[in-house]
Parts: sequence; structure tokens; C-alpha cells
Amino acid sequence: MKITRPTLLLDEKKCKENIGLVYKKAKKNNIDFRPHFKTHQSIEIGTWFKDIGVKKICVSSLEMAKYFAKQWNDITVAFPTNILEIDTINELSEKIQLNLLIESKETISFLKDHVKHKIGFFIKIDVGYNRTGINPNDISLINSILEISKNSENIDFNGFLAHAGHTYKCRSKNEILAIHEKSKQIMLGLKALYIEAYPDLTLSLGDTPSCSVSEDFSGINEIRPGNLVFYDLTQNQIGSNSIEQIAVAMACPIVAIHKERNEIITYGGSVHFSKDRLENQAEGIIYGRAVEKKENGWGAIIPDIYVKSLSQEHGIVSVPNSMIDNYKIGDYLMILPVHSCLTANLMKSYTTLESKEISRL
Amino acid sequence: MKITRPTLLLDEKKCKENIGLVYKKAKKNNIDFRPHFKTHQSIEIGTWFKDIGVKKICVSSLEMAKYFAKQWNDITVAFPTNILEIDTINELSEKIQLNLLIESKETISFLKDHVKHKIGFFIKIDVGYNRTGINPNDISLINSILEISKNSENIDFNGFLAHAGHTYKCRSKNEILAIHEKSKQIMLGLKALYIEAYPDLTLSLGDTPSCSVSEDFSGINEIRPGNLVFYDLTQNQIGSNSIEQIAVAMACPIVAIHKERNEIITYGGSVHFSKDRLENQAEGIIYGRAVEKKENGWGAIIPDIYVKSLSQEHGIVSVPNSMIDNYKIGDYLMILPVHSCLTANLMKSYTTLESKEISRL
Repeated sequence: MKITRPTLLLDEKKCKENIGLVYKKAKKNNIDFRPHFKTHQSIEIGTWFKDIGVKKICVSSLEMAKYFAKQWNDITVAFPTNILEIDTINELSEKIQLNLLIESKETISFLKDHVKHKIGFFIKIDVGYNRTGINPNDISLINSILEISKNSENIDFNGFLAHAGHTYKCRSKNEILAIHEKSKQIMLGLKALYIEAYPDLTLSLGDTPSCSVSEDFSGINEIRPGNLVFYDLTQNQIGSNSIEQIAVAMACPIVAIHKERNEIITYGGSVHFSKDRLENQAEGIIYGRAVEKKENGWGAIIPDIYVKSLSQEHGIVSVPNSMIDNYKIGDYLMILPVHSCLTANLMKSYTTLESKEISRL
Repeated sequence: MKITRPTLLLDEKKCKENIGLVYKKAKKNNIDFRPHFKTHQSIEIGTWFKDIGVKKICVSSLEMAKYFAKQWNDITVAFPTNILEIDTINELSEKIQLNLLIESKETISFLKDHVKHKIGFFIKIDVGYNRTGINPNDISLINSILEISKNSENIDFNGFLAHAGHTYKCRSKNEILAIHEKSKQIMLGLKALYIEAYPDLTLSLGDTPSCSVSEDFSGINEIRPGNLVFYDLTQNQIGSNSIEQIAVAMACPIVAIHKERNEIITYGGSVHFSKDRLENQAEGIIYGRAVEKKENGWGAIIPDIYVKSLSQEHGIVSVPNSMIDNYKIGDYLMILPVHSCLTANLMKSYTTLESKEISRL
């Protein structure tokens, strides 16, 4: 493989294995797998899901929904509905089954007055992450939203949707499972309350840690993990995946070596990785970890080689004195990203280990 | 102005004033202003520099050099030369005066063997930032590089270049001036040593804080600040600029309001702002600050309204209880970015206050 610039390498085999694992888990639990495509943002990677039987997807913006609507006809925009984009909503819902998220009376009222074609909506429930969503005990607000949506022939209530993003603070499988169990109970409680009035009511849960670690989704109807397509160092620290499952690595040319301070400077900075970070006591803040180069891809983490700082184009990589002579200017390092969603979002394309270029939005 | 999605607004007047101030300072000191274009990455904004008389520019990648080579014929790539891109170097140096940065014998030897057309090079000096560059006391390495470059008809030694990036840790003008003074002394010391052998030797200094605050550049030949075109909250905290000089703000639609925790959720997340952050004791970590909306642009900072957290598309904005009723879903907030370079790099275009769309690389 010829590397000349920072290049986001994609291990297609690992990626397909990651997708396959969750797909099988969903099948086994008899629930739908509605993958979140905000991580890869690629029509072509989307076909890898389609090929194994996935039929519905999730995205985080109407812009992404427009892009994927070329190939997918059931898309949930898992973000509080932005009423300023009503024109795009009407354009999309004419063509596909578009599902939106509602967490206020204002938004559902606006939609009732302005949608021209049938849309579905989920009521977003806050299961403890405290970012968006309605407090599950606020039955009065839920009822008001449902009341407003009634008698509108273009607005269908799909069910309740939650994202247990507080699993990102977990550092063990048991912590993740405890949050997942609580989220499930909250959602099942709502189902019990509303199933009579809405027999087709769907419960949708989403975070990658829960979907990676839990085997029990009883009563849930669909899962929406996204990051699992690639995984990353953050998900590994949470406990979602092994290092071997991480399916993307950035190839970063070495442009300078500073032995006197045990540092290698790579071409690969914050405009390639973004600036999400991890922290640990021994190393401080890190922005990526080097892995061994293999003939066809990459292998294990090289202990003690990590990205300690990022400028716009520079990566400052800490390399132990005993290993620094293994590298020379003109080589490249392979770096696992801290947060693959933001890294992928910055790169214009992926390069598979077979040197195939895969484009994205 | 019609806002429907996160939109990077550009105050053309403020921007031109920022450019003009530094240009005048350079003129007064009788030195060249070679602006760094990595901040705006836009041919059109580049013309605002050209119109007042700027003739040379600086970029941070060969990709940017290619883009700007359509309009500029003297470009320095202020990044350690990536020898893996030798083909691009040869392609560019056939057309324009291309200047590269050298900090190792390996890189200059490689260039000597592989460049096909005339290039200039600067020896990168580490004036204390400790990211890249040669220790100014390492005369032996400087001499070796110069020795290798001799007898090569395609490689010209331009002079010494430094970036005093450690000014970014300053929190007052006096701290910045102290670093600037030290950088200048280091560079002047090198000039004294080499001016006889290289009478046209140029000294190039670069950081925005020094170039904004200092009035004294005696002995220096050119300055290369970049961020000053827009400035931002970080530069303001350092002491480079007033809040009034910040020339970009992100318009972020309000998609949810959570009064119970004094939070507004905006459409405007880490894929729009990137994740550089500031920290202070009262507020903790912040990712942006809201400013007053004005009929034609924005005004002062609204105290106590700041972005406290960013997800991929979500901005979580802290709003005091007493003010939260001033906002409703479907409004938008105007947010000053923490780091305008990374924010601009994520957005596909700028929108001026006159609703003109300005594209970038």
C-alpha cells in the first residue's frame, strides 16, 4: 500500500465481523437492527449492512438522511427535530418512511401544522443520560404530545426511543449492564402504559456499549448502535470491544524525530483525528495509540507509543527511547483513533487494506 | 438572514479590519506579511489580502499549497517536509516559488536527490515551543544541513523560521511580549552567525499572539500569523484580541429546551465546532460562548450563556434560569468558537452577514 498522506485505513473483514455480530444478536433476540450510520456516513459501507439483511437505518441529521435516501427507504433521524428544516422534512417524507424525534409540544405542534406527507415520530425518553429527551415520569407531557398528534393524518406515533449515552462513562461490563437493565425497565414501563392505545408501539434503544455487551433485549423492538461498525479506543476503554475489533487506523507519515525528548512528529493532526481524548494516570492525555504494521493490515498495540498532543496537522507521538531508532523519516505509523465517528467525519474517504477507496458523504 | 442549519457566519468588515491592522504593522516595521492561510482555507478570503498588497503566503499542507497555487506564486509550507509527497513537491515547484521547512539531515538529503525544480528551504528553529524544529544551539546540525544543501542547484537556503507556539499558554500581553523578545533574540543570534555566508538570509516568525501584541520586529524579515483573520475565544483568553474583533460566529438552531436543568440543546456539535476547549474555575470546560443577535451581525457576549458540552451534532448550552424563557425552539443562538481554525476546517463554507456564500478548500 502506498501511503503519502494521512490515510484512514479500513479493515473490511473486521468491519463486516463487527456488523455481523450485532446483526446475529438482534436476530437471536428477534428484534430489528436499525444501525446508526452517522459513524461511517458511507453509501458503500451501508451496502455491507444491506447485504446481510438490514432494512432500516438511523442517522443524525436530515443531510445524512437525504444522502442515504438514495438506497434506504426507512430512516430515523435520531436528533431532536429541527423545525427550521421543514422543507427538507417534506421533501424526504414524500419519498421515504421518515421517522423523527419529538420531545416537546412546540415541535409536534409545528409538525402537525406543516408536514405535507406521512411521517412517523418517536417520543424521545431520557433514561438517565440527561442530554435530551423527556423525563419518563412526565406522563403529562407525553400525553400532551400524543394528544396533539392525534387527528393528524400525516403524523404517526411509532413509540419510545432512548439513547443511554451515560454508558460512555462506564469502565466495566457490569456497569454497562446495570445501566442497560435500568433503561430497559424504564422503556418497558412506558410500553405497559401505552400498549393498549397503541398496539404497534415500538421501543428503540441505542448505545453501542449496551448493544455490544448485553445479550438480553426482551421487550425491546429495535437497537440502533452506530460506533460498533469501527469501534475505537474509547469504546475499548468502556468495555464494548477488544482492540482486535477496531476496524480503522490512521496511517500517519513520520516527518520529524526528536530523540532528545522521545518524540516522533507525524503528519496526522486534529484536522484528521479531531480532538476527543482519553486520560490515564501513567500517560496523561492521549489522542491515539500506535499498532504494529502487518503485511496486510495492523496487529497489536505497541506498548508505550501513543499520540500525546495534536496540532492542526501535527501529531506529537511519545516513543520510548529504546524504540525510537526503529523509526525513520518517511516511514508511517498506524494509529488507532480515540473516537472513530469524529475521525471518519474529518476524512474524505476510507482506504481498505486491499487499496480500495471508499467514499462518504 | 435565513438560518436552517449550523451556519458559520463571517463578519467581512471585522475580518478585513483584522487583516488591515497586521498589514499596517508589518509595513510600519518594514517587514513582509506572509499570512498563514490554514485558518480560512479560502481562495476568496485570500483575495482580501491580495487586494491590500500581500504577495506571499504560508499554508500547512501541500494540499493547501496546490489549492492556493491557482492565485499565489510564493508559498511556504509551514510544516516539516513530508518526503512521501515528493511528487506533489515537484509538481508545485515547477509552477511556483515553493518554500519548505527542514529540520533534519535525512530530509534535506532526500530533497537534494529528488527535487526536479528550484525550491527554497527554511531551517526550522525551536525557540522554546518544543514541538518541532532544531535547538538553536545545535550549530553542528544546522551546519550539516547547510553543507548538504550546498552544490545543489535546485535547493536554496532562505533562512530561519520559527513558530513560538508557547505563547498560546500565555494569559497576558507581558507574558507574550517576553516570549516574543526571547524568540527574536534567538533568531537574531542565528542571523549574526550566518549573514556573512548568506547575505539574503530571511528570519521568519509566526504566532498570532506575538504578531497581535508586539510592535517591535526589528531584525525580523517576515511574520506569518494566521488565526488573526478570524481570531477566537482562545486568542482572546491569551490576550491577542478583543471579543469585538472575533469575525466568525456559528448560528445554531435551538432544537430542545430543558428548563429543569437550565440547558438549551442546539444543532451545532463537534462536527461543526471541533472539540478544542477552554477551562475556567466558575464554568468548568467550555466549547463556545453565546453573543447577542444584532440586526446585521452580532454584539457582545451574553454573560453566563456558554456551550458546556458537545456531542456529534448536539451542543448543550448552559443558560441561566432567569434568561431561558427568552429562547424558544426554532430560534437560533450565535456562538463564538473556541478555536476558529478547527471550526472553519469542519464547515464547508462561510456565510457573510450580507448572505454571500464563500467557499473553501
